[in-house]
Amino acid sequence: MTKPYMFEKPLGLRDTLPQAHRISYELKDLFYKEMNQWGYDFIKTPALEFAETVGKASAIDDHQLFKFIDRQGIPVVLRPDMTTPIARVVGSELKEAVLPLRLAYTSALYRAQKSEGGHPSEFEQVGAELIGDATPEADAEIISLMVKLFEIVGLDPIRIVIGHVGFVDAFIRDLVFDEEDVHTLRELLYMKNDVGFRELVAQLDIPQQNKTDLNQFIDTRSLDIDKTLQFMEHHPCSDYYQEVNNFMHLLKAYGLLEKIDLDLTLVPHLDYYTGFVFEGYGGKIGFSLASGGRYNDLLKQFNRPAPATGFGIRLDRLIESLPMEAFPDEPEKVAVVYELDTIQEALEYANQKRKEGIRVVLQNAKSIQNERAFQEQFKTVKSFIKTGGLSI
Amino acid sequence: MTKPYMFEKPLGLRDTLPQAHRISYELKDLFYKEMNQWGYDFIKTPALEFAETVGKASAIDDHQLFKFIDRQGIPVVLRPDMTTPIARVVGSELKEAVLPLRLAYTSALYRAQKSEGGHPSEFEQVGAELIGDATPEADAEIISLMVKLFEIVGLDPIRIVIGHVGFVDAFIRDLVFDEEDVHTLRELLYMKNDVGFRELVAQLDIPQQNKTDLNQFIDTRSLDIDKTLQFMEHHPCSDYYQEVNNFMHLLKAYGLLEKIDLDLTLVPHLDYYTGFVFEGYGGKIGFSLASGGRYNDLLKQFNRPAPATGFGIRLDRLIESLPMEAFPDEPEKVAVVYELDTIQEALEYANQKRKEGIRVVLQNAKSIQNERAFQEQFKTVKSFIKTGGLSI
Repeated sequence: MTKPYMFEKPLGLRDTLPQAHRISYELKDLFYKEMNQWGYDFIKTPALEFAETVGKASAIDDHQLFKFIDRQGIPVVLRPDMTTPIARVVGSELKEAVLPLRLAYTSALYRAQKSEGGHPSEFEQVGAELIGDATPEADAEIISLMVKLFEIVGLDPIRIVIGHVGFVDAFIRDLVFDEEDVHTLRELLYMKNDVGFRELVAQLDIPQQNKTDLNQFIDTRSLDIDKTLQFMEHHPCSDYYQEVNNFMHLLKAYGLLEKIDLDLTLVPHLDYYTGFVFEGYGGKIGFSLASGGRYNDLLKQFNRPAPATGFGIRLDRLIESLPMEAFPDEPEKVAVVYELDTIQEALEYANQKRKEGIRVVLQNAKSIQNERAFQEQFKTVKSFIKTGGLSI
Repeated sequence: MTKPYMFEKPLGLRDTLPQAHRISYELKDLFYKEMNQWGYDFIKTPALEFAETVGKASAIDDHQLFKFIDRQGIPVVLRPDMTTPIARVVGSELKEAVLPLRLAYTSALYRAQKSEGGHPSEFEQVGAELIGDATPEADAEIISLMVKLFEIVGLDPIRIVIGHVGFVDAFIRDLVFDEEDVHTLRELLYMKNDVGFRELVAQLDIPQQNKTDLNQFIDTRSLDIDKTLQFMEHHPCSDYYQEVNNFMHLLKAYGLLEKIDLDLTLVPHLDYYTGFVFEGYGGKIGFSLASGGRYNDLLKQFNRPAPATGFGIRLDRLIESLPMEAFPDEPEKVAVVYELDTIQEALEYANQKRKEGIRVVLQNAKSIQNERAFQEQFKTVKSFIKTGGLSI
């Protein structure tokens, strides 16, 4: 094993330098205030959870987990997601809290990477969970809140892709009889591998009509909302047409419809979802910035069965997708330079300016190694030097 | 190995529920704004660092580290301190940044606990580092900023205990000739074990006068600043008397003197300190809330030799020590209850109220299981129900 260089960091990890930190802090603060206005309460959970409890329930692939054995000899993981720890809290410390519960978080999540591919192993997520409300109005509120957060930070355009994992499962199971084939088709949808999907469909031992239906199903991805709903109407599959149709009307009431794409083939990364699922896109980049959906079975694992829905926004991706104008200006700094004799005046001046809301660096002239380089950092330099040197 | 219960968390880890989260968030936001006013820039570093680089340089005992082998087969640790990662950043990504540098952070730190003794394994620290300034004015600024943070959150009283590790080492080495004895005496000072210190001194093979001096040294802990300075004057030890005396005058200029205790026997937990060191106390509790000091040798390890000083405040301990009045009131929430027919009006009303700065929960009446329990959570409930049930 070679010793790493002193400047090296473990795979996929990043430092956040002042400018990026400021942007991230201000976005998070906007989100915090807005989510509070909607009545969501923030909570925090530890970085480590037991692998057997939250680790397993989080449904993150084992090879993506940072997993090790703690001092008590029990396997632990670095928190790979926040929905599951929140489910644990709702089933324990908040067991007596009245449902519906509205909870929110800003948190670092950890997912191990195999190689340096630009994918961070540690990233921040802002999210909300609405627990104990089974109505589509709860799904609509969660999507509406997510869109609102996108809007207040200036993301433009905003696209929300909505699907329904209950429908996907039921629809495929109606047409495909082998459970393993159902699973593989679902995987191919998750990978958005249409070619692979069609190839597998062609090979299946099912009636020709079923194959046609499956291929038409894949084709709906390019259809608008009305045409997609028509497809559902023509391919009845329990009450899903009614449910999805009503939901579209509800989103219209929320003023969201023009931002929505309905994609029946949407299968998300996490497999605890049970109903409507969605992904958020926008701005400059082509991959999803946020995702979420309904998960009605997760809370049961933590001894408090309850329907729930929520979203999570990837802060790093959101920041990448925002236009430059969305970012706050770097607040300018003033330097106050003094020598031992003038420290009293310099202190008073600096304190006064700080009270006025100005960022003031108070600097002993003795420690300035390069006057020009020092001065270039500041809007102005106020000098309390009597012996010459730095001037105002 | 027994499987943990679903509600369990690994040893020493805590959840932060809404009320505690709000207090912590608001304190951190006050600190963020104040430190920015002083010209400090915030940065962030990853939760994981290599054990051989930052892990080793952080000078935290091995049994306190969360240590494991990552997927590349290299030992990593959960960040046990922030000063060392910041030193790494200053020696790498910020290599070209002009000194002096003023950096700040709010960060979770990780130190493994052996048993559930109320000591958390994960805790938040707020801190600042002033890098590239060797003058006592830099030490004074760091202490002054720390006191200011205590003041703005309402900590009262505030006591700062100041020592000097350079003096301690030099003074003991002048009187004790065996390096191992010097080390043990230093350990006993760190443990604040005066009895053990005196017992060891009695056994040492050194002149009687040296023993008297060492015992008088321990006695200085109970002396006021003037008497402590007199002790230093009568026991000359290179230029330390001058240095400490000047520093006290400087702290007077900063208006800090009445909050200061001078304790020559102070030996801090971390062993990278080289000069003035200090601990912050205050409010209701008897243990230290903050600590810091000068560390002129750490940056060298990261290929950018520079003098530096800094502090770190333990947020959990600070919160414990504040009076109830220091905490923000829980902002009241209003509930807006609707049914399917009235969703449009309810939405408009809720949005209007939120714009006015009121926290509004918008709730479909259908999902309220217990009307009374629901209502008790809110200051007022505005009902958009036409069919009876919840009233205003």
